[in-house]
Amino acid sequence: MEKLRDAQVDSLLVMHPADWYYLTGFTGESGALIVTRKGSTLITDGRFVGQAKAETLGVNVVLQKPALYEATGKFIAGQSGSSAGFDATQLSVAQFQTLKKAAGRGVSWKPVVGLTGTLRMRKEPQELAVMRRAAILAGQVVEGALSLLKTGVREIEIAAEIEYQMRTGGASGPAFETIVAFGERSALPHARPTSKRLKKNELVVLDLGVILAHYCSDITRTIYFGKAPKRIREWYQGVQDAQVAAIAAVKNGASCGDVDAAARQVLERNGLGQYFVHSTGHGLGLEVHEDPRIARGQKQRLEPGNVVTIEPGVYVEGVGGIRIEDDMAVHSDRTEVLTRIPRDLIEI
Amino acid sequence: MEKLRDAQVDSLLVMHPADWYYLTGFTGESGALIVTRKGSTLITDGRFVGQAKAETLGVNVVLQKPALYEATGKFIAGQSGSSAGFDATQLSVAQFQTLKKAAGRGVSWKPVVGLTGTLRMRKEPQELAVMRRAAILAGQVVEGALSLLKTGVREIEIAAEIEYQMRTGGASGPAFETIVAFGERSALPHARPTSKRLKKNELVVLDLGVILAHYCSDITRTIYFGKAPKRIREWYQGVQDAQVAAIAAVKNGASCGDVDAAARQVLERNGLGQYFVHSTGHGLGLEVHEDPRIARGQKQRLEPGNVVTIEPGVYVEGVGGIRIEDDMAVHSDRTEVLTRIPRDLIEI
Repeated sequence: MEKLRDAQVDSLLVMHPADWYYLTGFTGESGALIVTRKGSTLITDGRFVGQAKAETLGVNVVLQKPALYEATGKFIAGQSGSSAGFDATQLSVAQFQTLKKAAGRGVSWKPVVGLTGTLRMRKEPQELAVMRRAAILAGQVVEGALSLLKTGVREIEIAAEIEYQMRTGGASGPAFETIVAFGERSALPHARPTSKRLKKNELVVLDLGVILAHYCSDITRTIYFGKAPKRIREWYQGVQDAQVAAIAAVKNGASCGDVDAAARQVLERNGLGQYFVHSTGHGLGLEVHEDPRIARGQKQRLEPGNVVTIEPGVYVEGVGGIRIEDDMAVHSDRTEVLTRIPRDLIEI
Repeated sequence: MEKLRDAQVDSLLVMHPADWYYLTGFTGESGALIVTRKGSTLITDGRFVGQAKAETLGVNVVLQKPALYEATGKFIAGQSGSSAGFDATQLSVAQFQTLKKAAGRGVSWKPVVGLTGTLRMRKEPQELAVMRRAAILAGQVVEGALSLLKTGVREIEIAAEIEYQMRTGGASGPAFETIVAFGERSALPHARPTSKRLKKNELVVLDLGVILAHYCSDITRTIYFGKAPKRIREWYQGVQDAQVAAIAAVKNGASCGDVDAAARQVLERNGLGQYFVHSTGHGLGLEVHEDPRIARGQKQRLEPGNVVTIEPGVYVEGVGGIRIEDDMAVHSDRTEVLTRIPRDLIEI
């Protein structure tokens, strides 16, 4: 509510599920949250009204009639004050048109960027406690998966077992579709598990995360199934050195672009810059990709409570890929690596 | 490309992953597809370029530089013809602003609704063949889960086992977060699995679907753990009669609103109308919710190749919920229920 005053709006429309959950505890998939200086209202449909009442406290829950964006526009028009803030990334062009029409001319719409996202970036101690557990569980699942790597096993079998272990370990599910990529397929940074079978002398990339009590973790380890040849060991060392440099660059006050550059420079120095095709990392929390972004040129500065991944990689078409990813929390005077398993090349 | 001519646009921007996949085979998570009368171009980032080349045929794959919406706007500005179609549901207000700015004044933007969606609604025989297998697998998973229902078992344990069985059955994963709801929690139509343990004389709702070779299924069965009291049996009968009526109403040429009304009227006649808080069904295909919608007042008429769910339910706060859901395909002269397991009340 304080932020409404700063943004000079009378009400704020929140249309993003992770933002609803953060602000109210509501876990439903459809709805609209309207925050005013007097309180909060959640508009949702019949499937979620009971759930919304059970999950929230001090929030006015309203059944939408007839459709969500019409009901929301009319509700906002009925509030005191004429200025409504919205996040332009949370509404489609079509939704915004319906909303404006339903609210009528009495409401002036003001784009407001990432208001809830700014709050979500600074994790509270109790959020960090959950994220620590989520990161540790992800590491345990990686270690458990190593024993399943045998000649002839299929990527999808490993993925099924990984997601099963997440759930029996207490996760509500995977934070994203688990990546299990063998051989040449590991050169695709976002490979989906297929029926491909593991052969001797192939790279294996495992990239997985859990959702534990609503919070995500995200970890990657690269394995060589056999004895790694010299070239692979050199590439791995290059990626690992890049990760060490980026981990060292993470600290309260550092710019995200400088953390990205720390990893990138090491890879470039080793002649691997052209094979590093993505950013060094991303924020982590209720969502697996959130602010801040650890990417080229990002001026945003790290603050206490930020949680980010550090995940440099190299991808060589026709050969394979190597990525090492860990999760880190920023504190005022130190940093903390949340994922706790070794980072050296694993040969099986 | 024929549809571009009908819509009077020179190019069409497709920003929805299921639409990309349908048109090109690309399964990446980020990108932009531009269809012109001369051919198709996929713009994506370094993580997905290799994958896009491997998955598509006859599609021009372009690495985005620097950012997706800027690169896409500039690409469209460089095409012959000035009129670009876009789907207002597929672009956020912020994305559309960036796009317009990058494309400049030479491009006129024309909203075009559901062009690819219209194609996707009419499933081809080979798509139906996959959807049949996806529906059968979902039924098998439900039947397998019944043997796990024992006093003291937790909702999350059943959900973990269900999703494991999907994958070992050949699915790439669940089509949505599996719903396992015991007792009063079954009154929440979209309940997430919790640590709640099963007790004697509780309702159990299992709602699950698989993704098999990219296509979704969706099935719900309701179980009484014990001997169902008279009131529950009556409610169940009401829901089952409503489902029978809606299944009979599905046919080539019927309006979706009439199918919804068929279910709704039976529930109302039995005094259960107030407890039916959602629509009767939805289209199913590459996505678990797609067109056509089987909802109140929908004028859209069913056509051969449509696949829809029929899923009436009643939800009584403090008591529990009952839902029965099956998947149906519409053919020119008949209909086909794709899910093959019995629909009677299961007492365990």
